[in-house]
Amino acid sequence: MKFLRINMNKKSYKFENLKSDYSMLAGRALTSKIILDEVEPTCNPLGAKNKIIFANGIFVGTSFPCPGRLSVGAKSPLTGGIKESNSGGVAATRIGQLGLRAIIIEEIPEEDELYTLIISKSKVEFVKSPELKGNGNYETVANLMNKRGNKIATLSIGPAGEQLLAAATVAVSDLFGNPARHAGRGGMGAVLGSKKVKAIVLPKTSEIEYDPIKSPEEFKKLTTEYNKILIPKKRGLTVYGTSALVRIADEIGGLPTKNFRMGSFDQMDNISGERIYDTIISRGGRPTEACSPGCVIRCSNRYVDKEGEYLTSGFEYETIVLNGSNLLIGDLDTIAQIDRTCDDMGVDTIEMGNAMAVAMEAGLVKWGDGKGVLALLRGIAEGVMESRIVASGASTAAKVLGVTRVPECMGQGFPAYDPRVFKGMGVTYATSPMGADHTSGPAIPGRIGWDTDNPESYGDLKESKGKIKLGRELEIIASLCDAFGFCYFVWPDLEFLAEAITARYGWNFDFDRLIAYGKMILLNEHEFNARAGILQKNLLPSFFYDEELPPTNQKFDLKPEKLKEVIDYF
Amino acid sequence: MKFLRINMNKKSYKFENLKSDYSMLAGRALTSKIILDEVEPTCNPLGAKNKIIFANGIFVGTSFPCPGRLSVGAKSPLTGGIKESNSGGVAATRIGQLGLRAIIIEEIPEEDELYTLIISKSKVEFVKSPELKGNGNYETVANLMNKRGNKIATLSIGPAGEQLLAAATVAVSDLFGNPARHAGRGGMGAVLGSKKVKAIVLPKTSEIEYDPIKSPEEFKKLTTEYNKILIPKKRGLTVYGTSALVRIADEIGGLPTKNFRMGSFDQMDNISGERIYDTIISRGGRPTEACSPGCVIRCSNRYVDKEGEYLTSGFEYETIVLNGSNLLIGDLDTIAQIDRTCDDMGVDTIEMGNAMAVAMEAGLVKWGDGKGVLALLRGIAEGVMESRIVASGASTAAKVLGVTRVPECMGQGFPAYDPRVFKGMGVTYATSPMGADHTSGPAIPGRIGWDTDNPESYGDLKESKGKIKLGRELEIIASLCDAFGFCYFVWPDLEFLAEAITARYGWNFDFDRLIAYGKMILLNEHEFNARAGILQKNLLPSFFYDEELPPTNQKFDLKPEKLKEVIDYF
Repeated sequence: MKFLRINMNKKSYKFENLKSDYSMLAGRALTSKIILDEVEPTCNPLGAKNKIIFANGIFVGTSFPCPGRLSVGAKSPLTGGIKESNSGGVAATRIGQLGLRAIIIEEIPEEDELYTLIISKSKVEFVKSPELKGNGNYETVANLMNKRGNKIATLSIGPAGEQLLAAATVAVSDLFGNPARHAGRGGMGAVLGSKKVKAIVLPKTSEIEYDPIKSPEEFKKLTTEYNKILIPKKRGLTVYGTSALVRIADEIGGLPTKNFRMGSFDQMDNISGERIYDTIISRGGRPTEACSPGCVIRCSNRYVDKEGEYLTSGFEYETIVLNGSNLLIGDLDTIAQIDRTCDDMGVDTIEMGNAMAVAMEAGLVKWGDGKGVLALLRGIAEGVMESRIVASGASTAAKVLGVTRVPECMGQGFPAYDPRVFKGMGVTYATSPMGADHTSGPAIPGRIGWDTDNPESYGDLKESKGKIKLGRELEIIASLCDAFGFCYFVWPDLEFLAEAITARYGWNFDFDRLIAYGKMILLNEHEFNARAGILQKNLLPSFFYDEELPPTNQKFDLKPEKLKEVIDYF
Repeated sequence: MKFLRINMNKKSYKFENLKSDYSMLAGRALTSKIILDEVEPTCNPLGAKNKIIFANGIFVGTSFPCPGRLSVGAKSPLTGGIKESNSGGVAATRIGQLGLRAIIIEEIPEEDELYTLIISKSKVEFVKSPELKGNGNYETVANLMNKRGNKIATLSIGPAGEQLLAAATVAVSDLFGNPARHAGRGGMGAVLGSKKVKAIVLPKTSEIEYDPIKSPEEFKKLTTEYNKILIPKKRGLTVYGTSALVRIADEIGGLPTKNFRMGSFDQMDNISGERIYDTIISRGGRPTEACSPGCVIRCSNRYVDKEGEYLTSGFEYETIVLNGSNLLIGDLDTIAQIDRTCDDMGVDTIEMGNAMAVAMEAGLVKWGDGKGVLALLRGIAEGVMESRIVASGASTAAKVLGVTRVPECMGQGFPAYDPRVFKGMGVTYATSPMGADHTSGPAIPGRIGWDTDNPESYGDLKESKGKIKLGRELEIIASLCDAFGFCYFVWPDLEFLAEAITARYGWNFDFDRLIAYGKMILLNEHEFNARAGILQKNLLPSFFYDEELPPTNQKFDLKPEKLKEVIDYF
């Protein structure tokens, strides 16, 4: 596999062989290492010295479960630190089909022009695209498909990315051509926007060039058997998608409600996974859908309106909760429209849910006012100031609006798990090099680390007991999922993963080497952050320590000295 | 001297004896030590756990030159680090007359009420002040003087402070009752606003209770002699005020022009110190004026409009340049109105000059459009979103407006010295624990450190040579001026300062002890910042390294590894 390096200043490109140092790196391990090695840590994230990297994993195109995830890495304009933002969609697979492990985009054009990059096996076209300026992702992708056929895969930014706003995403087209999968977190869309790249087009190719599988029979046997075990285990996800968690989070009292004031929402039934399922079924949508090639879990979905017309897909737990209960909005169609509008404007649904809560704290929008939220979102396309403020992320919006209640770590808004109940999530938010990010250590109910003989050692969900151990192990395993490029819902048995890596490339991985590999990723990321001038605070905002969360009246009580033990372990 | 500690949650107060640890601390040394000892470094600067401290220096009320400066300290909402913001005005002296070294304000009221605090020798009144809500500083002070007589001294915030905006100042009434002196930098007004304190009233008191002077005759002799030398040395300042520097900065090519794109302004003659002097004289204003009791330098002024009516005072170099040449505004009356409006809204003229340049980069206001700037400033009172954005400071405004050219360190906008020409200022901006702040190491033309036998060792102004030595020495001396509470224009001979301290309190200071004292202040501040999660970057924004500054075509070339030597010395 090769690198494609694109210089937006010179409009030049180069297909490079992987440096030997990088030969065993993929996905997040690769994006983070390139950033550490090549990006000046103190640079302006929206300046010429930042780079944005799109990398796939080592199982791309194989029978490994859900192998088509995309790592998007850069120095983040939201956190100021390193970022890997992970997405489904077709791009990672298409990049792999071109024989590429990663695309690296560097520098900034001098001219004020917006570009579409057309990437094929041996060349990159730099197409000036003034006609796409200001377009939403849906219009952009429709336009590109009109011109270049609907078999293309796309990466694109909405108006938020063009405007360099820190909540901006990179949209990734899904299997049905919808720009509904997003590298959402950390403002990757603003970085791509700063490089004046409106879209990247990856045409379908017939000459597919994956690296050969080292032990093909062994690999096939391993993955076939694993899929047989995996799929039944993921039944919750394969029926209701991620929104199955709405009811569970509400029942245990950890469902973010009214800007993390309460852990339960009186209109929960209206936004539950069951309600979504019933609504979708009755209207003729699809309750589950794969987000990327080779996905066997199918936790995505296709949500249609009352007329049965496509409204959005990838309508997921985080989006529903942060833009539903957290804003006191109890109407599914409204939340689905918010999701669609976020996807179209190219902003992160998690960051926006938090930023809208800030806007509600400031009285800019009333609590529960879905129309107000939609108007603010749509205003991004026109550069309305209020819209720019929220699309700069919850933390910046709070500064401008004079709001002090902001659930954030490292400037990044909280995912939809109140850490007073989801104690392990709190550990992840506080200690991840990515800021508040559930995917970097997803302590969902029932999840434990690798010490499966001693499940009690991780404590109960709401207990602080065992959460340091849990946090460090989950962060390591999550980094492995992101690095090897498969969906973290696979959450593999590590012995299986080691065997699969060995069968894929002959790298002789085992459990210990996997753990060392995960630690290396996290250490590289913390190292970049330290060089960037960010000290890991290992701390949540004070109200999580001081305010009881009704109805369970839990507080968060893990202090920085303790939380630091997570990182000391790496 | 005592402390007065005020709790805004309980509406309680306590007069405390100084802890013995604190007995030799005053001004900035004291505010920084209290913050280090008492403020949780990771707290929200606008939350209940931050404290704001007003402290005077050890020479307050004595014949030491310019002894009436006020240190205002808190964790800064602008930089996220420790802040001491220094101001003239009457308050420091009035606080001293009450027998107080410092006033510490803690906590936040639960109720949504605005308070005025009336402070006298034995009591604090908490007066609910809904009638002052939203008022500018001029109206606020007029209102308070109407009610309480024009002998009062005031500290107050404008609408920006009430709205918790990070460019908000604390206004300090001057000798003529105008709220024209400001603790401008770092958002101290937002901290006071977060505590719901609109104003602090310090009535004139007849029972003055300074500590007795240890060796009164020696002290009188020392200071009388020193004043005789000092005043003629400050002739530039005593005639033209600080704006004498406009022409000099332009001539050497370091006058910030068009957001630090050029070092010279074609309309410089219209905004020079000479022009200000002539204008003021012809209209019947005052070209020089003392900013605080005991000031012998008189670098302040009183600027009047064409009808001879008071427009503003303390109309100084930083304000004139950052809101003049830096915005391509060449009309003095317009800049004076901008100054007046900043003072009235309670925002820092330095931060706003930078933020307005950002607004101009974004096309929100046209270059040179003074009316547009004034409209944006006035909008702060109405909470206009564009106004809130700029009053959040240049760095936050840049995020929201998608601008990447921001002259800032640690989130604080640059003072009016382009560091490519004023190399020593660049060292200060990059290495000060306060962010970009000229007063924390004022490397103006001709200034050297304490190695007066080897002036050549500091290099020429535009040379990098000698600037590490210069930076560390100036930061130490500046911290001493701030700590002992006199104006930094005194910039004393250190032997004299040691003798004066010894004569004042009998503390047996000498040169070495002074240097150790200054280092201690800086170390305490860096320590707080480190605990707050801020790593000192020792770096300017990249365009100062990459872009030549016309007309001298200088670049800044001191890199972090080198700049770090400033701090390693402390």
